[in-house]
Amino acid sequence: MTPQDAVRRLKSLDSETELLEHSLAILAWDEETNMPRRAVEERSEQMGYLQGILHNKLVTAEFEDLFAAAGADDANPLGDPTLPTLDRAFLRAVHRRYSHETRLPEELVTEFVRQTSKATAVWREARTENNFPKFAPHLKTLVELTRKKADCLGYQDHPYDALIDEYEPWMKTSEIRSIFEPLAEKLSSLVARIKSVPQVRTDFLDARFDVAKQEEFGRYLLEQLHYPLDRGRLDVSAHPFTTTLGFDDVRITTRYKEDLLMSSIMGTIHETGHALYELGFPEELRGSLLATGTSLGIHESQSRTWENIVGRSRAFWQVHLDPLKRLFPSQLGEVSVDEFYRAVNKVEPSLIRIEADEVTYSLHIVLRFELELRLISGDLAVEDAPAAWNDKMEELLGIRPDSDANGIMQDTHWASGLMGYFPTYALGNLYGAQFTKTMRRDIPNLEAEIASGNLQVILDWLRSHIHVHGASLTAGELCEKVTGESLNPRYFSDYLEAKFGAIYNL
Amino acid sequence: MTPQDAVRRLKSLDSETELLEHSLAILAWDEETNMPRRAVEERSEQMGYLQGILHNKLVTAEFEDLFAAAGADDANPLGDPTLPTLDRAFLRAVHRRYSHETRLPEELVTEFVRQTSKATAVWREARTENNFPKFAPHLKTLVELTRKKADCLGYQDHPYDALIDEYEPWMKTSEIRSIFEPLAEKLSSLVARIKSVPQVRTDFLDARFDVAKQEEFGRYLLEQLHYPLDRGRLDVSAHPFTTTLGFDDVRITTRYKEDLLMSSIMGTIHETGHALYELGFPEELRGSLLATGTSLGIHESQSRTWENIVGRSRAFWQVHLDPLKRLFPSQLGEVSVDEFYRAVNKVEPSLIRIEADEVTYSLHIVLRFELELRLISGDLAVEDAPAAWNDKMEELLGIRPDSDANGIMQDTHWASGLMGYFPTYALGNLYGAQFTKTMRRDIPNLEAEIASGNLQVILDWLRSHIHVHGASLTAGELCEKVTGESLNPRYFSDYLEAKFGAIYNL
Repeated sequence: MTPQDAVRRLKSLDSETELLEHSLAILAWDEETNMPRRAVEERSEQMGYLQGILHNKLVTAEFEDLFAAAGADDANPLGDPTLPTLDRAFLRAVHRRYSHETRLPEELVTEFVRQTSKATAVWREARTENNFPKFAPHLKTLVELTRKKADCLGYQDHPYDALIDEYEPWMKTSEIRSIFEPLAEKLSSLVARIKSVPQVRTDFLDARFDVAKQEEFGRYLLEQLHYPLDRGRLDVSAHPFTTTLGFDDVRITTRYKEDLLMSSIMGTIHETGHALYELGFPEELRGSLLATGTSLGIHESQSRTWENIVGRSRAFWQVHLDPLKRLFPSQLGEVSVDEFYRAVNKVEPSLIRIEADEVTYSLHIVLRFELELRLISGDLAVEDAPAAWNDKMEELLGIRPDSDANGIMQDTHWASGLMGYFPTYALGNLYGAQFTKTMRRDIPNLEAEIASGNLQVILDWLRSHIHVHGASLTAGELCEKVTGESLNPRYFSDYLEAKFGAIYNL
Repeated sequence: MTPQDAVRRLKSLDSETELLEHSLAILAWDEETNMPRRAVEERSEQMGYLQGILHNKLVTAEFEDLFAAAGADDANPLGDPTLPTLDRAFLRAVHRRYSHETRLPEELVTEFVRQTSKATAVWREARTENNFPKFAPHLKTLVELTRKKADCLGYQDHPYDALIDEYEPWMKTSEIRSIFEPLAEKLSSLVARIKSVPQVRTDFLDARFDVAKQEEFGRYLLEQLHYPLDRGRLDVSAHPFTTTLGFDDVRITTRYKEDLLMSSIMGTIHETGHALYELGFPEELRGSLLATGTSLGIHESQSRTWENIVGRSRAFWQVHLDPLKRLFPSQLGEVSVDEFYRAVNKVEPSLIRIEADEVTYSLHIVLRFELELRLISGDLAVEDAPAAWNDKMEELLGIRPDSDANGIMQDTHWASGLMGYFPTYALGNLYGAQFTKTMRRDIPNLEAEIASGNLQVILDWLRSHIHVHGASLTAGELCEKVTGESLNPRYFSDYLEAKFGAIYNL
């Protein structure tokens, strides 16, 4: 078999797994948006069954022969050098998935599902009761299992490398550490300076905003952001998400709360950002595993660019505040663009990550990263973790949790066994800022375009520089290609310094 | 292997196919209700792929050994007599499905899909252009392929037996013929008598009815009919349907047109009737292929009992007209229960089956049945079919189509390759009337219960007499068990004579 034949066969196998992945996504989407309550258990059986079929497809022994024929192995995942570049990228991605899927023993996967399911139930209770000791033994079990998982997956320097690699392929712990350290310093300093000056006005957002009108503004936003409704849809779910049901079917969800106008607006823009990425892959990647975001960090860079850099810019509200005012004249009629812009950018250290602003958000991530590292390394005992959490929070944000419920137990991630995931949230901010720096160079009048309602220019730039590559470039390769250098936290801190320096007159 | 072991293994294999069937139903439901337009092709790939997996599961060679061990074959589908009754019924159903699935050669199935897909596209054009000759060659091909299909499936007396058996298992052409002949005579006579007396008043239905209010009344109806919204949901689609996504997830759809109030009301009741059947199977059938309607005729008996016998009864509108009037006071405020009752039961021969009333509907089916028989037997050439259609229409209903578009080309069924399907629509009417006769004996004050808004008493009766059996009894067995005799068209014609005799003062 020639390398070309092997790649052809691998593509055929991969197209089957894509069909299964998308079918599973349909079942999962329906579960979150439409499914009647009593079908919960049966849906998880249906999904478990399809996942079993998918797993069998992914570990079929045929892969070994095909990789050998294509010259791809751990040392040389790109395979035979005579293959076209895109085929080599495809080979690397398929090989990576196969290695991952075959390295985890089935018993470990099953035990992990069993333990996370238990831990999640206990975590929910323990958080309500503010009772960390109740949750602690489960967290301990999950840390041990996660460590075992890392050992099975394999790593060179640090077991945490194996964990982050699941979400941010090819990223290393050492690199994150060298990025997060200076970042934390800069952000903490910026937070401290903001705390020393008068706070911005936000009282006009403390009102009731009719949900039907919020929905109307949501539809307006989708149109402004060029989200194609013939290739997706917007629904309501308990937690907003984006999901890919096919190359031409990428759906988003949001939620509306009468007293939280900005939550649905920013949530919708955020998810649209994710969806535009998934809808931007070129036709030649249709049906391939390369038609996906290359890492969660890059994915998050897309959602956060739209949400924060565009959606929280002054230029954006210069043109979109009026339509919003027309829907809510009594609440917002008297508010100026400047006042509104400042309000949606209010910086205030708070205990809860998901409520954090653009400046403090990444500090929450640094905290989790450091704790995860210590837990996985065995440097920190689970019993001592709440105190370590609170100390770190005080160090980074200058506030101390009043309870473990608002501290270490606030997120579901650890109970769900998601260790190594958090860093991608902050990496998204950094990639986003670094990409935007290049975009500003390419589009010098960017602000004016945004202020005139032309967001197409941004979408076009992201399409041709980021989306077009799908997962054929790694996050690192993409960053180099687009910006000419590797990930550098300076662009993000510079962006924040400039933006919030102006807002707070620092 | 003991027969018991074989059944156990068959149940395990079957539970996998049920999970796949339900997963496919989720994909299909989503396609009709939510899917963005441009995902059409890709969705059909996803479904085709899952259908392929399902087909492979259904024809796995292991079945042969299991049937042998369980003592089940064509001559004795119930298998080993020492097995529990329910296991024997299960065996019969699994064996039947396996035989069907293995008898059709893959080339024929593929060719059938290819030709029906082409024929459907041409039919749509030909109907618009009223150009039967354009459609004729495709219909000819499909008749030939259908005949081949019948030969592959096998039959004893008539190739049409093999066709009807797909939708109405174990039913024979000869039985349908002996039922339809006297039925047609009685119905034609009733229609003629109704035509000779003054027509009922329906002018108040020729108005505009706000869609949001129609939706509100739809939700009211679901509640009145005890459709459980924690095990299903109501959505909008181009053509109303009911679909089973799981034992606890049976969904219905309807459509609303401002100028057709009764269409959405009766459509919703009809689909709810289908859904209540699918939601009424006992827990012991969960996850088994016996948790389904035993035949399309029995399924239709449930929808039509709710739609016609209940939903078009005077007693029903005695209690539910007032809530409807409150929503539409200007259109219906002055209408009496009697006037409304007569209006929703107006009998008028018309060319189009789907617009037909309770009396003329089955005559449309008799026409199709007779034509299908002659086409499949080779007694009628496709070119001569339009004239045969028009003659038969004149004979049965006393009207003659003004065009082939309103005649032979009105239904999609033949273009979709659905021959043998139509009779189940009329059988549903007959089964429904015969079941209701027994129900009236068991619940003597039925009318009073309906008039007091108590529909639970009907649901309870259907649950314990019909639904409880799932597909463990054949339609014929069920009819015998419930009514003490085999299917007899007299109950339906008696019911119509009594009801419409009173409405039209015959």
